[in-house]
Amino acid sequence: MTPSTTSNLLVSPAELAGERVVVEGEPYRHLFRARRLAGDARLRLVDGEGRARWAEVVTIDRRRAELRLLAEAPARDPSRRVELLVAAPRPERAAWLVEKATELGVAAVRFLASERAVRGVDAKSLGRLRRIAGAALEQCGGARLPALSGPHELTDLTGLVLPERVYLLEPSATAPLPAGGDEAAAVLVGPEGGWSDEELAALNATATRVRLGQRVLRVETAAIAAAALLLAG
Amino acid sequence: MTPSTTSNLLVSPAELAGERVVVEGEPYRHLFRARRLAGDARLRLVDGEGRARWAEVVTIDRRRAELRLLAEAPARDPSRRVELLVAAPRPERAAWLVEKATELGVAAVRFLASERAVRGVDAKSLGRLRRIAGAALEQCGGARLPALSGPHELTDLTGLVLPERVYLLEPSATAPLPAGGDEAAAVLVGPEGGWSDEELAALNATATRVRLGQRVLRVETAAIAAAALLLAG
Repeated sequence: MTPSTTSNLLVSPAELAGERVVVEGEPYRHLFRARRLAGDARLRLVDGEGRARWAEVVTIDRRRAELRLLAEAPARDPSRRVELLVAAPRPERAAWLVEKATELGVAAVRFLASERAVRGVDAKSLGRLRRIAGAALEQCGGARLPALSGPHELTDLTGLVLPERVYLLEPSATAPLPAGGDEAAAVLVGPEGGWSDEELAALNATATRVRLGQRVLRVETAAIAAAALLLAG
Repeated sequence: MTPSTTSNLLVSPAELAGERVVVEGEPYRHLFRARRLAGDARLRLVDGEGRARWAEVVTIDRRRAELRLLAEAPARDPSRRVELLVAAPRPERAAWLVEKATELGVAAVRFLASERAVRGVDAKSLGRLRRIAGAALEQCGGARLPALSGPHELTDLTGLVLPERVYLLEPSATAPLPAGGDEAAAVLVGPEGGWSDEELAALNATATRVRLGQRVLRVETAAIAAAALLLAG
């Protein structure tokens, strides 16, 4: 979209609060070998929690580089808080969903256990998805990672501290999902086989039914289209 | 999203205009082996050009089935015509883009040659993308396939018969891409390395600059988010 002249690097909140950061291993190879950053390079460090700072290179050795942290940098996170609550799709589709949700600035992706969902997520797959989110955050220049969690039982959604505005995507609904807005919102995206009647009854109590076109969208397509709409403006 | 009780089958416009259709090969295996459609099944046949008809099974043999065409069926295509003009991304990302664009009901995906684009598309990759679009159309229940073409030279966009409304996504623009609307629209999505100055000068003459958030989105993410916005409502 635009020349990404600044390299972004995801560090821990503790590192971002300090004065120096040492870059080793894979991030070192990516920045100082593949991208060939030189001693006069300026980087943007982000902590995954919405804070960003500029940094300059102090030293580059053969295996590590040291950076000095500078002033605060723009976070480039959307102000609206949007959560995606999705019936867990297959791993490759979940990966794509998390990458795109991170780029768009979604605040959380929660994977739901559902009667007709393909399969759940586990600690290992969440770890992989977190690495994908980290890479996407560095690529797009945001500062806040989406929270990733699951599997959540539909009967236990109250444990999630949902925003007041919760939408349920349903092709049979009459109202379209509204674009834009400021208030925190969550979107429930069911499995391609649909929610069971029991699940739908439980969800109807907390959610407003809306539609996103007339077609049967895949879980990740519906989730990303909904995120794009809610984060518009 | 909702139980897809009806199986959709993409056939040629000539077949859809006839009275009987013979199903063989891969579609036969998918419908009558994997999905185990029986003699009382009702199908929805679509021609990829926006027409759909119901069909019933006449005979199922070991290698083929014969369908009888019935009344017109709903097309489930968006009324707005939206085209995506994108700097060609890597093959796997192009595949995702085409799948998602098809699901959302985009009318065309045109791949642009660009100085900083990763690579172009060729006849072989367009053929693969057309098969992906066909599968996505059957899955989502639309009736119109997106036109897929390229590579197009930026200096030769006039050959494309663009709609009057052409948006150029640029993170530096001040106006956001507007959601919803009825008039035909096209969106230009540049490579992640950005357009060159020459390219930008050529595009500025025909397009309105708009932005989609403050981040550097990947080509396919920007394209799908833009399609979701333009097709909203």
